Amino acid sequence: MSAASAATPPAPIQTMANAIRALAMDAVEAAKSGHPGMPMGMADVATVLFTRFLKFDPKHPTWADRDRFILSAGHGSMLIYSLAYLTGYERMTIDELKRFRQLGSLTPGHPEVDPTLGIEMTTGPLGQGVSTAVGFALAERITNARFGDDLVDHYTYVIASDGDLMEGVSHEACSLAGHLGLNRLIVLWDDNHISIDGSTDLSFTDDTPARFRSYGWNTISVDGHDPEAVAKAIETARASTDKPTLIACRTIIGKGAPNKANTHGCHGSPLGADEVAATRENLGWPHEPFVVPTDVLDAWRAAGSRADAAFAAWEKRLASLDDSARKAFEAAVGRGVPAGLSELVSAFKKKVSEEKPSWATRVASGNALDVLVPGVPEMIGGSADLTPSNNTKAKNTADVKGRGDFHGRYVRYGVREHGMATVMNGMALHGGVIPYGGTFMQFADYCRPSIRLAALMKQRSIFVMTHDSIGLGEDGPTHQPVEHLAALRAIPNLLTLRPADAVETAECWQIALERVNGPSVLALTRQNVPTLRTAHTEENRSARGGYVMAEAEGERKVTLLATGSEVSLAMEARKALQAEGVGTAVVSLPSFELFEAQDDGYKASVLGSGVRVAVEAAVRQGWDRWLGYPGATGTAFVGMTGFGESAPYQELYKHFGITAEAVVAAAKARL
Amino acid sequence: MSAASAATPPAPIQTMANAIRALAMDAVEAAKSGHPGMPMGMADVATVLFTRFLKFDPKHPTWADRDRFILSAGHGSMLIYSLAYLTGYERMTIDELKRFRQLGSLTPGHPEVDPTLGIEMTTGPLGQGVSTAVGFALAERITNARFGDDLVDHYTYVIASDGDLMEGVSHEACSLAGHLGLNRLIVLWDDNHISIDGSTDLSFTDDTPARFRSYGWNTISVDGHDPEAVAKAIETARASTDKPTLIACRTIIGKGAPNKANTHGCHGSPLGADEVAATRENLGWPHEPFVVPTDVLDAWRAAGSRADAAFAAWEKRLASLDDSARKAFEAAVGRGVPAGLSELVSAFKKKVSEEKPSWATRVASGNALDVLVPGVPEMIGGSADLTPSNNTKAKNTADVKGRGDFHGRYVRYGVREHGMATVMNGMALHGGVIPYGGTFMQFADYCRPSIRLAALMKQRSIFVMTHDSIGLGEDGPTHQPVEHLAALRAIPNLLTLRPADAVETAECWQIALERVNGPSVLALTRQNVPTLRTAHTEENRSARGGYVMAEAEGERKVTLLATGSEVSLAMEARKALQAEGVGTAVVSLPSFELFEAQDDGYKASVLGSGVRVAVEAAVRQGWDRWLGYPGATGTAFVGMTGFGESAPYQELYKHFGITAEAVVAAAKARL
Repeated sequence: MSAASAATPPAPIQTMANAIRALAMDAVEAAKSGHPGMPMGMADVATVLFTRFLKFDPKHPTWADRDRFILSAGHGSMLIYSLAYLTGYERMTIDELKRFRQLGSLTPGHPEVDPTLGIEMTTGPLGQGVSTAVGFALAERITNARFGDDLVDHYTYVIASDGDLMEGVSHEACSLAGHLGLNRLIVLWDDNHISIDGSTDLSFTDDTPARFRSYGWNTISVDGHDPEAVAKAIETARASTDKPTLIACRTIIGKGAPNKANTHGCHGSPLGADEVAATRENLGWPHEPFVVPTDVLDAWRAAGSRADAAFAAWEKRLASLDDSARKAFEAAVGRGVPAGLSELVSAFKKKVSEEKPSWATRVASGNALDVLVPGVPEMIGGSADLTPSNNTKAKNTADVKGRGDFHGRYVRYGVREHGMATVMNGMALHGGVIPYGGTFMQFADYCRPSIRLAALMKQRSIFVMTHDSIGLGEDGPTHQPVEHLAALRAIPNLLTLRPADAVETAECWQIALERVNGPSVLALTRQNVPTLRTAHTEENRSARGGYVMAEAEGERKVTLLATGSEVSLAMEARKALQAEGVGTAVVSLPSFELFEAQDDGYKASVLGSGVRVAVEAAVRQGWDRWLGYPGATGTAFVGMTGFGESAPYQELYKHFGITAEAVVAAAKARL
Repeated sequence: MSAASAATPPAPIQTMANAIRALAMDAVEAAKSGHPGMPMGMADVATVLFTRFLKFDPKHPTWADRDRFILSAGHGSMLIYSLAYLTGYERMTIDELKRFRQLGSLTPGHPEVDPTLGIEMTTGPLGQGVSTAVGFALAERITNARFGDDLVDHYTYVIASDGDLMEGVSHEACSLAGHLGLNRLIVLWDDNHISIDGSTDLSFTDDTPARFRSYGWNTISVDGHDPEAVAKAIETARASTDKPTLIACRTIIGKGAPNKANTHGCHGSPLGADEVAATRENLGWPHEPFVVPTDVLDAWRAAGSRADAAFAAWEKRLASLDDSARKAFEAAVGRGVPAGLSELVSAFKKKVSEEKPSWATRVASGNALDVLVPGVPEMIGGSADLTPSNNTKAKNTADVKGRGDFHGRYVRYGVREHGMATVMNGMALHGGVIPYGGTFMQFADYCRPSIRLAALMKQRSIFVMTHDSIGLGEDGPTHQPVEHLAALRAIPNLLTLRPADAVETAECWQIALERVNGPSVLALTRQNVPTLRTAHTEENRSARGGYVMAEAEGERKVTLLATGSEVSLAMEARKALQAEGVGTAVVSLPSFELFEAQDDGYKASVLGSGVRVAVEAAVRQGWDRWLGYPGATGTAFVGMTGFGESAPYQELYKHFGITAEAVVAAAKARL
């Protein structure tokens, strides 16, 4: 249902747009920093979109079937804040606009995700918004395929800048959007020819519409200051049944500012008192700063009420569903812990703890997915062209083919790691689905800007990163992560999970799926590892981040700390030390973050006193936290100090001295 | 001079190509892992290129004026190893081919930079090769502009895969290449329609030639198994005076393998004994594994000698230059420490230590560049559209405008952080120039795959990363690095340099420029900091990584460790502690890596005994190394535990408790 479209605005559209211009320049002036140029340039386009097309309801801002609006050019944040105030999002008061860029305000320098304010995602790092929008549009079609037009039938609109389209990630995501035929995606490109260095001609002479046509998009070019032309373009875009649309809106940055418009002088700095005054004059906007006259505000508030009837009708349709259908929908869009998850995980754990397979943890993950994906209908998998290596495709799941067919559960992302991460984030933000996607852990670097953004936005994107060490073997140092575990553990609010065996792998999947307020990385081996957790526990032991996998026999004199594939190596070392009468415990640390969150008593009991040796086929950074934790009488780290090499992995472990023998020797030297 | 072009090969080209096919499949078979499909598919194209066009001399492999060949599709490494052996690179023996993917061989899983083997760069992470090639082609034109056609006149050829072109970084770099009109860049696209997941149609339906035309490239489409068509296309590409060229070579992956050709079954796995035998039969190649008959080898070796006369003529031209011109060229391509650098730095340090400015370190960097760039003619600057923020453009330097004008010293990279990093790497690899380029430190994440590759390849790329903490202020958490210092310090062979004031900034520039075997990151503040090093020293004190900036008065009881903007904060805290009679030293740690490399005695003397408090406006990870270093009686870290906020920076430091008061309190609590 797109009932909110095409109503004539009740006040002169130019005046309504000028309200945005005035608020943007006044707020930037008050903050003494910010970006007035973009909101002033795109005010006309945004006014057309918000008053005639966008289906949204500030009174019910999280309405699952609202259109999504993404301000990819996040530096122009005053555009979205102005719109939120003008259209009537209750918490976005005029006082919040006055507090632009101040501590604790609702109006930070760049928009931070809060759907109750109409802010669908955090933007600012260029390229992320337009690329994440592809995930929104994809989730819309996938949930539409599951729940039907009555419940899911909306558009994703984006305002993107030149910079957004210069970023590589825009290539990855927009190419995929064209491939999938995401016709509900409409990108309004602020084609203003200005960037920070000056004219875009300094560095950018792409024929951008031609580029997007090469991806299979529609393209339309309009004067971004001609409301009827913009409206017509949006209508045409909405009518497309098989392609996303790029609307190139030729605009003048800072439009309205008589001296600074069309220059990079208005991109990222206040206009200054004189130019603000001249702009008021030029726009015929005589009102004091932050004052919007009643008639203009009324017109905007009316635009914010356009969807009242559509929302009521949608609620009625939802209420009229039978109980199970309604509950399924509510569960999907409710972003909660999947029902029945712990039972699925527990049964899987019981089975593998009994059968004790020697699976690579990527294989364990694949086998866990064979159970989880059928049981959790929101899960949408995928891989950046490494499906057979990442083991991400659960058996009997179909591809999300696109081009009208969105019934599958598996996305072929192509060789587009960064694009995959943005699309996953968009799906998580949209809701109704839980995205997971795979690549080699090495390529976590490619995804990193979006992994960080998922952490900052507190979104449940689950990154499956296989081939997580020199255990990758022959592909060599270009493909062997050594610093990636440390680098991922450094990101706030990201869980980095490195399970030691099939049981821990299932536990880590449970942790990631239950973590409704943040992303997780599963670091998985290419090479086989034995099952170590052979005594079944209902308890998810990995959930404490670290635990004693094998207690010392006799007094504990040595504690071996390890993760992933090195836990079994630590177990071997323990055996050798115990054989010599040295009481040795092995601690598995699948997540530093979860372990850090435990109380001091628990941490101390796990880490023990005496000699402490950590082993991980990666760099030392981060391990000093646990080695240096009070209680140790001697410490050592066995791991990597530089890049890997190309060779069969068994040889590499020996070559780099990451062996049970080395662990034993390190422990004994410190006893 | 491109004298090496267009000679008819002296043996049937098909047979010569089959030698590549046989070696590739045999080596993969012997290694039991690898990628035979690509070398077999592109054997014909490569044979045309190497026997008729590529200007190279295996006897003088580092000839400065050789054409550069980049195998962007690095997984097809057996292609380049076969070519190196066949054309006569001395060290690339048949035994090395037999040791494919074995420890210590010259034939690792993916090619690792070694120009003496014809391997111009390390490839494997997709997208990097084709994007880095843009830097090669740019450096060629820049050095040509400086030294003229007699010395610098060559092409850059690339073999790229579907995956390379799906990667976002290919968009950034190729768009820039089109903008600059890098006509010496010729990309041979292995258009085989197959990727790991299966047909590229699963995820990729771009009209790639149309995309490249939108960037301002020539495009040509040919049958990649028709040598004459390929040759004609390369001739056309070479004749272009204003545009780079994409040649779409339609090929059959694994061509020659009767059952596995044109399937993803031959992409990344050995063919298997049966299929290898069938392929021998099918190709009419009856020879034993790793045997190349003499006539075929002779034909290949003749191809490897095509440039003998061209090389001799070039050497003669070089020798005929006057002394200063020859020395300037040899210095530029010699990759050494720039002459006169230490004098320039010392003079700058003397001046600022006397004048004691309160400059942001980005401003100090800009002022240092005003001195360094004129004095070091190899330096080529740039920024990813943040020139006025990064302070990267030295005064009186002109832009590298491109399109025939390559006399400038400054590249406008556009909003293309990742592309910039690849292009910088390409310039460093090409030689003749020393690239540096700026962006916000936050966007180190965008550049990360290429920063890592620079470290792995040991290249002198200098990344200027400004706005290096919450000191960025109002732009907020999307733009405030908190984990980036840790994440960069985790990368092996990368120097992360965070200077505390204008003097250290100059010292860090010296370190980065003198570091001929690896990349550096300069982490620089947005906000002003006082000059702390007010007593001039000739010695580059930052070169030891850490040093006592201010010794305790009286017995040292407390040591404060800090970097960058937090060193001045530590100095304030020291003042307060000393006022209370607590002997307190301040240690500046501009580089963890350089400090780690010092001997234990030095480290212990700097870190001192007693209470140790570290302060950095970033996450704790990595600091435990120094806090936990033997000698401390109590430790604390004052810094960030999560993401930042949007507000004026002074408020943020207070809000997050990163203040002199907090440092004093932390120290006193542990005394």
